[in-house]
Amino acid sequence: MQIDVRPARSRPSDGALEAVRTGLAAMLGNRLVTSLAVRQQHANTLTWIDNQAPDMVAFPESVADMQAIVRLCAAHDVPVVPFGTGTSFEGHVNAPFGGVSVDTSLMKRIIAVHAEDLDCVIEPGVTRKALNEHLRDVGLFFPIDPGADASLGGMTATRASGTNAVRYGTMKDNVLALKIVTPTGELLTTSRRAKKSSAGYDLTRLYVGSEGTLGLIAEITLKLQGIPEAISAGICPFPTVKAACDATIATIQSGIPVARIELLDALQVRACNIYSKLSLPETPMLFVEFHGTEAGVKEQAERFGEIAAEFAGGPFDWATRAEDRSRLWQARHDAYWASMALRPGSKGVSTDVCVPVSRLSECIEATQADIAESGLVAPIVGHVGDGNFHVLPLVDMDDEAEIKAAKTFIERLVARALDMEGTCTGEHGVGQGKMKYLEREHGPEALQMMRSLKQALDPRNLMNPGKIVTL
Amino acid sequence: MQIDVRPARSRPSDGALEAVRTGLAAMLGNRLVTSLAVRQQHANTLTWIDNQAPDMVAFPESVADMQAIVRLCAAHDVPVVPFGTGTSFEGHVNAPFGGVSVDTSLMKRIIAVHAEDLDCVIEPGVTRKALNEHLRDVGLFFPIDPGADASLGGMTATRASGTNAVRYGTMKDNVLALKIVTPTGELLTTSRRAKKSSAGYDLTRLYVGSEGTLGLIAEITLKLQGIPEAISAGICPFPTVKAACDATIATIQSGIPVARIELLDALQVRACNIYSKLSLPETPMLFVEFHGTEAGVKEQAERFGEIAAEFAGGPFDWATRAEDRSRLWQARHDAYWASMALRPGSKGVSTDVCVPVSRLSECIEATQADIAESGLVAPIVGHVGDGNFHVLPLVDMDDEAEIKAAKTFIERLVARALDMEGTCTGEHGVGQGKMKYLEREHGPEALQMMRSLKQALDPRNLMNPGKIVTL
Repeated sequence: MQIDVRPARSRPSDGALEAVRTGLAAMLGNRLVTSLAVRQQHANTLTWIDNQAPDMVAFPESVADMQAIVRLCAAHDVPVVPFGTGTSFEGHVNAPFGGVSVDTSLMKRIIAVHAEDLDCVIEPGVTRKALNEHLRDVGLFFPIDPGADASLGGMTATRASGTNAVRYGTMKDNVLALKIVTPTGELLTTSRRAKKSSAGYDLTRLYVGSEGTLGLIAEITLKLQGIPEAISAGICPFPTVKAACDATIATIQSGIPVARIELLDALQVRACNIYSKLSLPETPMLFVEFHGTEAGVKEQAERFGEIAAEFAGGPFDWATRAEDRSRLWQARHDAYWASMALRPGSKGVSTDVCVPVSRLSECIEATQADIAESGLVAPIVGHVGDGNFHVLPLVDMDDEAEIKAAKTFIERLVARALDMEGTCTGEHGVGQGKMKYLEREHGPEALQMMRSLKQALDPRNLMNPGKIVTL
Repeated sequence: MQIDVRPARSRPSDGALEAVRTGLAAMLGNRLVTSLAVRQQHANTLTWIDNQAPDMVAFPESVADMQAIVRLCAAHDVPVVPFGTGTSFEGHVNAPFGGVSVDTSLMKRIIAVHAEDLDCVIEPGVTRKALNEHLRDVGLFFPIDPGADASLGGMTATRASGTNAVRYGTMKDNVLALKIVTPTGELLTTSRRAKKSSAGYDLTRLYVGSEGTLGLIAEITLKLQGIPEAISAGICPFPTVKAACDATIATIQSGIPVARIELLDALQVRACNIYSKLSLPETPMLFVEFHGTEAGVKEQAERFGEIAAEFAGGPFDWATRAEDRSRLWQARHDAYWASMALRPGSKGVSTDVCVPVSRLSECIEATQADIAESGLVAPIVGHVGDGNFHVLPLVDMDDEAEIKAAKTFIERLVARALDMEGTCTGEHGVGQGKMKYLEREHGPEALQMMRSLKQALDPRNLMNPGKIVTL
């Protein structure tokens, strides 16, 4: 897919690249890699956006390494593209102007866990599963769960969220402070470890979701949660998407602090049945999870069951046994792979939008009608408590007409969400793939302001150029 | 108090002011006021920082009025200082370079309440009490409660929080979107009404806490909460501040979703006893409130009581009756006035800091020792769940030595908080009073970045100049 970028930069000269390559090789040894295979793995891999490989891949082991890499790149005007686990969908890690991919996978130390303060300090390459593994013994967990075992640096950079954002918020709500390597290689700290502050502009949240375009995330202080005493999960079929969405709205309005509430449409349920060997009724389905005390989750589950019944949902099958819960949620987490298995050989082109919850059923139903008309195969899963849903068109990449149909479908999906006061992406981010929607979403004034911010903080367009905004 | 500002601007010329005055009078009629009394009311009134009155006060009734005011001011290079209810503490509404105070009190329409989406759209002059009055009939409320009946525009501008931030977050967590009048009089929207988005830089949170220095807040979309089915409140004495803080940490770690948890030190309890005619034991005291279902709040209260007892606290006296709850919390809300009444004729100089909760008791106890040594009268109240506390030195403004003692006490208080990874202000904001601490708190690189942001978005330093950062 060709992305319409109007670059304020071109590729670096061969001389500049050679100087950076030589300098980094001297500094990093075999932690600088230039083989084509590794370079291509460090560009976009999960969607149909063209793979635009960096010229080399650097593996820093420390903040000082990161600073040295950026300084050398800045000295030779060579782009810097941060890389976590490469699980982003919109071309975030592509290198359209070449340059150095900075892979943070060796920066995976958990620097401190402050149990009394419910926070921790980590390096950006720590993945969410590794962090939760580490935290289990102290009875804490980090709640944000985008599905993939993404790095927390990447999750911060894309303002990720996922299944339990409805209860615990998104990355913007769970990052307390960041250390940032600026485009000139300086190190700055965005905030203190205090739980709240009114001491000036909110630099932390300016970097959360900035997708590496303003600087590299070198260290992260995250809020943590106590592992709930009890967790209860369940599934509930509904006759229609609307009924499931209405039950979701009523659940949240009634103050039930639901931890996860996920919609699978009928096609997605069928995919899960096949892939995960389940025998669920193939109708819209809510997967729910409650966190609290033993008595609390029981009360929540009972109330949810009553609400579901009011909207013709049910029977609500709930299980507090860890193995039942795991089996159900494993199926939900495998939904992406289950979908892919619906049409072997196809490419899944994951996209997401988010609308006010009151418009959600209308938006999903119109999208389903559009899918049917377009002749696409495209299951839907939704973080419905937030009004956020994903569509995964399964595309035969050898069929030009089908590719075109999928592309125009996504255009209409985004337009539909924007018409409903929604956003072109609830959690995947902009990358390259959604840049073209930003002007319509934000308006020319706000988009110009984003450009002004980029210009002010990275005037040479060194950091992940060609993403979010062009200068 | 003289504030050390190195202005990038001087006062406007008489000609410029005359041109703005004439233009605004033609546009606003008697909604432009130039009397000294009104001008002085629109400058700082609640602390010892000198009152620096604006040259005139404009009362816009609409976004279009706001834009016209800013355009006229921009055309003549006259500063614009936003004004909500004037309840800020750090000189936020002062006009050190003169200019136009923009009083939003006539912009108090509630534009929309979206009950299904749990959000509302309001003008900036709506106060939190007015909003909650309006919302009561639909069973919703806006949780942020800084004590004063502040305007929501002002609360947004200062990133306010207060007693129930421990449960519901601060303004940064509860503002979904803003309309902003930029320094050139353009109107921009920072985000959509969708509950979450990853579509570019987080402009919303850049403006939350920007204290009017980047633009005027013209419209606010706020998240709302359902009024809990049950609310239970109680008070619990502790032998020491440390015991109360340790009980707070244990409460939060154990996952009790406490809605408010407030510490009053012994002096503050004495003040409340006198002012609110109570007979509480004059020892450190936690005021707590629980929100949930009937069964839920009962369970929360019982567990809290058990935890308090583990830390030698108690008896824990709790009441779910609305009138009992109101009486207790009224005393807490009147704590400021109760303190002032401890020493009639004195000026209360409210200040706040915030530290990681694990350092809180150490910080408060060291502060109490400092108060004793300094010979000051200064009660302490704390939003202890967040590690945030307020000290209110009661100062005889005719006594130069006492003023000096209070000033140096605040210097030490801030230094102590910063030494403990804390912040110079948890919720009051920077204004003029705390500018001098920002470099030590954030470091020169981050402070320079804040300057770069100001420079990028308000290069002429038109919006509330002399606050947060100087150019």
